[in-house]
Amino acid sequence: MNRRNLFGAALALMAAIGLVGCKDDKAGSEPAAASAAPAQTFHWKMVTAWPKNYPGLGTAAERLADRINAMSAGRLTVKVYAAGELVPALEVFDAVSRGTAEMGHGTPYYWKGKVPAAQFFSSVPFGLSTLEMNAWLSHGGGQALWDETYAPFGVKPLSAGNTTMQMGGWFNKEINTLADIQGLKIRMPGLGGEVWSKLGAITVNLPGGEIFTSLQTGAIDATDWVSPYNDLAFGLHQAAKYYYFPGWQEPQAVVESMVNQKAFDALPADLQAIVVEAARASTLDMMDDYVFNNAKALQNLKDHGVQFKRFPDEVLQAMRQQSEEVLDALAAENDLNARILNSQRAFLKEASAMHELSEKELYNWR
Amino acid sequence: MNRRNLFGAALALMAAIGLVGCKDDKAGSEPAAASAAPAQTFHWKMVTAWPKNYPGLGTAAERLADRINAMSAGRLTVKVYAAGELVPALEVFDAVSRGTAEMGHGTPYYWKGKVPAAQFFSSVPFGLSTLEMNAWLSHGGGQALWDETYAPFGVKPLSAGNTTMQMGGWFNKEINTLADIQGLKIRMPGLGGEVWSKLGAITVNLPGGEIFTSLQTGAIDATDWVSPYNDLAFGLHQAAKYYYFPGWQEPQAVVESMVNQKAFDALPADLQAIVVEAARASTLDMMDDYVFNNAKALQNLKDHGVQFKRFPDEVLQAMRQQSEEVLDALAAENDLNARILNSQRAFLKEASAMHELSEKELYNWR
Repeated sequence: MNRRNLFGAALALMAAIGLVGCKDDKAGSEPAAASAAPAQTFHWKMVTAWPKNYPGLGTAAERLADRINAMSAGRLTVKVYAAGELVPALEVFDAVSRGTAEMGHGTPYYWKGKVPAAQFFSSVPFGLSTLEMNAWLSHGGGQALWDETYAPFGVKPLSAGNTTMQMGGWFNKEINTLADIQGLKIRMPGLGGEVWSKLGAITVNLPGGEIFTSLQTGAIDATDWVSPYNDLAFGLHQAAKYYYFPGWQEPQAVVESMVNQKAFDALPADLQAIVVEAARASTLDMMDDYVFNNAKALQNLKDHGVQFKRFPDEVLQAMRQQSEEVLDALAAENDLNARILNSQRAFLKEASAMHELSEKELYNWR
Repeated sequence: MNRRNLFGAALALMAAIGLVGCKDDKAGSEPAAASAAPAQTFHWKMVTAWPKNYPGLGTAAERLADRINAMSAGRLTVKVYAAGELVPALEVFDAVSRGTAEMGHGTPYYWKGKVPAAQFFSSVPFGLSTLEMNAWLSHGGGQALWDETYAPFGVKPLSAGNTTMQMGGWFNKEINTLADIQGLKIRMPGLGGEVWSKLGAITVNLPGGEIFTSLQTGAIDATDWVSPYNDLAFGLHQAAKYYYFPGWQEPQAVVESMVNQKAFDALPADLQAIVVEAARASTLDMMDDYVFNNAKALQNLKDHGVQFKRFPDEVLQAMRQQSEEVLDALAAENDLNARILNSQRAFLKEASAMHELSEKELYNWR
């Protein structure tokens, strides 16, 4: 018997005693964790809300899967599916909840129809910055509240990325006063969209693939998307005159990895740690990707002659006031929402006092 | 034969064919990577530049080791040694270089006597922010330059944390004009210390443990340390009247994990991936820890009645000008230094243009 056959025999022996590649048949449960069974393998599907290899988002999902595959030496393989391959983008949460896929990759506000509180875990207008959101999630009680939000659906949430602060959007009409917002047709989902509506805009939601044409034909006057990195890839500068800042509606935006709780519980402790830490590493990786590529893409957009405009203070002040009202209304819906918003606001106050002395000074001295 | 015995037999069979717990005896080399050998174990030492469980720094080293232990299911164990337990704080780099320990945990400017270019990888006065430094390292060519800097010493550098932006320091004399700097006795290591010296201060370097007494007895007039989280733990507010900001000398500060290159090369690919990704996850983890605990500690210091003061613009402008001269002088020493500084400055320019539209707006609207 050669070395390869001996190894096969050893694996077969381990398999025979239930330690390799085995499945328990207990109703409704995955096999128990077996820390002494390093060769037990798991094959997971990750459904995503992104087009295949979409820059920054689809590529981040692939790199998260690569990390898990590499660190587990293939004991936990994760195959990534683009939006529409297994399920449509907006059904990713449901697919993970019912176990059609063991993992999902998206952003929480996509599931607001089913889980309104999820919106607090994506992005809050005039809310926490990138540094602050990560700190609130991991140290400020945010993760426990997020766990509580998804628990009824059997889904375990993990931060797996952040776009960092976004831009205000692409406009074919100038916004010089609040009056310019009346009747403005703008593509703007989420809480930011509600704020625009309250100020008189007509907000619509369009999938990413329809934005360019709608803007070019005049079906809409304006749209948000993300920031230079993604917006350049979509060619939005060829369909709109003005690029507005700041992106008050998304001062950061969490990209998440959802894990089916039963599938997670069925992993041995080391693979559980790999899933959790791969997501944490991916959060930083995506931040780095956006910070680097936004800086590069901004210069590229300037080279294309894009006109940058800042929302007037009058408009920003009105946006801010309306944002607080939209958030208060969401918090008033139930106790969970109220606890999440209160926790975020309390930390925002403390973190702002600190960043008044540090980050704010840094960006102002340039 | 019961299940346990059968498992033992399988392991014994795998061991017999050289797949479990084996070591090659090739002179000067560790066993070759064997991806089919999940039970091969490695026991590493991590020497650190920090006191045992020092908040934020020593605790981060412990959590990095915990991550590696957990993800590898004990196939790679890392035992953490506080400064002085195996080697003194400032000999950590040497210990990793010669293989006394497989890993180290410190901050690059500690090794400036041996590796002057290391200073660029800790913190640069008026330089990159936390978000930007991470992006430059992972996407902007910074990691390759850092690898090149440590390669002659057989050390592989990895970012494993960041303190985020620091404070200006604790002072018993007010700094109202540049004249107040003349003869000021200040504890300030690194590039920031050189800048203070050029403006007429008398800079000294003291280990952390001697700062409090030196400040209280008047042996020094002022000191840097880190930020509220660490400074409160040291009780510095009880030895100084004024807490100055901004910390222009350290707009971020990288905490690193050094790995002995031969020890790293001897790991199978999955354990290599675990070491690299554990460090990446730890970078975010430490950022979160500092952002959260700085915010909490700042409020605590305010409750203690600490007087916060901002360096006057005249002083900051002079500091900035002197910083550029200090950096230019360091870059002029050799080609490597020049390439590192040029790369950082080029990215700082691009990233500043982007953050002018995003992070700066965010911190200013509060």
